[in-house]
Amino acid sequence: MIVALAGGVGAARMLRGLVAVVPPETITAVVNTGDDTVMHGLHISPDLDTVTYTLAGMINPETGWGLRDETWSAMAELRAYSEGRLAWFNLGDRDLGTHLYRTSRLSEGASLSEVTHEIARRWSVGVRLRPMSDQRVETRVVIDDGAPEGREIGFQEYFVGHHHDVAVRAVRFAGVESAPAAPGVLGAIASAERIIICPSNPIVSIGPILATGAIGDAVRARRLDTVAVSPIIAGQALKGPADRMLTELGHEASVVGVARMWAPYAATLVIDEADAGRAREVEEAGMAAVVTPTVMTGPRESAALGGVVLGAA
Amino acid sequence: MIVALAGGVGAARMLRGLVAVVPPETITAVVNTGDDTVMHGLHISPDLDTVTYTLAGMINPETGWGLRDETWSAMAELRAYSEGRLAWFNLGDRDLGTHLYRTSRLSEGASLSEVTHEIARRWSVGVRLRPMSDQRVETRVVIDDGAPEGREIGFQEYFVGHHHDVAVRAVRFAGVESAPAAPGVLGAIASAERIIICPSNPIVSIGPILATGAIGDAVRARRLDTVAVSPIIAGQALKGPADRMLTELGHEASVVGVARMWAPYAATLVIDEADAGRAREVEEAGMAAVVTPTVMTGPRESAALGGVVLGAA
Repeated sequence: MIVALAGGVGAARMLRGLVAVVPPETITAVVNTGDDTVMHGLHISPDLDTVTYTLAGMINPETGWGLRDETWSAMAELRAYSEGRLAWFNLGDRDLGTHLYRTSRLSEGASLSEVTHEIARRWSVGVRLRPMSDQRVETRVVIDDGAPEGREIGFQEYFVGHHHDVAVRAVRFAGVESAPAAPGVLGAIASAERIIICPSNPIVSIGPILATGAIGDAVRARRLDTVAVSPIIAGQALKGPADRMLTELGHEASVVGVARMWAPYAATLVIDEADAGRAREVEEAGMAAVVTPTVMTGPRESAALGGVVLGAA
Repeated sequence: MIVALAGGVGAARMLRGLVAVVPPETITAVVNTGDDTVMHGLHISPDLDTVTYTLAGMINPETGWGLRDETWSAMAELRAYSEGRLAWFNLGDRDLGTHLYRTSRLSEGASLSEVTHEIARRWSVGVRLRPMSDQRVETRVVIDDGAPEGREIGFQEYFVGHHHDVAVRAVRFAGVESAPAAPGVLGAIASAERIIICPSNPIVSIGPILATGAIGDAVRARRLDTVAVSPIIAGQALKGPADRMLTELGHEASVVGVARMWAPYAATLVIDEADAGRAREVEEAGMAAVVTPTVMTGPRESAALGGVVLGAA
């Protein structure tokens, strides 16, 4: 059995690579829900949906999120009603079906774990998908908006509303103190042959998972069997603000900075060939470095990386 | 100024007739919200939407509710997720834009009156639309499902879920005791030249309005200036379960039964030519009878009825 700690796009591609080399049923993905949000009354779980839709082969290739063959009627009306104000978070019509279902089931008393399982089952996703917690943990971001103390906003307002194009001063996970890991998560970590930290944003994707309940401690206890894949390549994130965010919060935006953050949790860091020259520094930071191509441009590259990750450690 | 107490389809057609003969701005429609519901997290106001969309010329001619040129992607997904279970209440994609907007604005702290005004403004509806109350009043129906005491369900579950094809034992308006009339409603009734009770279901469309706050008393006080239009023609409702519901709850399903219910509120009842033979019984029940064609098959018939209603009393 394999456990993967997963954010959104990078993790989804990593998981797509893993299922190409081992049976999906042997993989448990523990997915970040810190950037879940309630929007217009609907419970939205962006990372869970990205992972689910990607593994189902249903991810929208035009947007990188949401469902393929999408229509946008509801959003067009919402935009017209609010002169755009309430329509900054795009929700396709098909995708809305997922949010309507999740919200309905949660209001019926189902847990997020149960609903996540149901949604994955509908799309015939074999990987066991679990939210990091069934309780609400909310990633909050203090942005630099000119005010001396900055301004705290929700993650989606930062990421989508501001196009993550604003400096970040601090990040916190509201509610994390009292949120236990979702059922099955700690047991899966304890008994896994291999634990993988997917190439997701260390601060806002993997950070909330490691901060939830006893998940961080459980991973530390399995450090020798844990392999992380750097989301930073040659100092840059392939997608999203991970590089800037690392710098803004006092880390180094490099594989070395990532190694310093993840060394307590994982013994091995998979880094891209572009960073081969920094392998020694990664090892000095406390992680064995495995150098391989890590850019998952397609299924073949994902599968190759999956093979390397499972072979490492 | 004119005030119209309004349910859904019949009221919308009546209002369409009134705006053909007087300026829309002179009409205030007080609309039933007893069959509002929260579905999948979204606040849905069926009668307000039917009236708004009809006056906007946007009502879906195929369904009789919702928006024209509609698509159904979200519902198809919700149906697939739940194997149909959660998809019994149809919501079109464009229509969802309205529900997303209403839910968002209510969660921002706007009142239902404010949101109703905003939605009407977006569609350039000149009639002043007001919910009967900004507080939640919930029409509950006790149906005969074999159990000795029956079973109480929400109105939409009865109306849509059971296709109103089940006997009704009782109706109540949960929350009505503490729900005041929405701002402006009592003043509009007190100062109107004419008050019109639209041809809507007396029990579950007009009933909740008259039961809310001091609306019933306010209408009674204007009885001589109030004209009602019978929703029952030759013992039958044109649409919906009003006829059966009247019988099941101990009323007569006829213009005479309607007159007995509404005589305390309105001095005049407009009845269809098909019921001319019962005009005397209507008068014995305490209402002056005006006989005219009342079937609003199109805009012309609506306008003709509008003219009669404004000329009556």
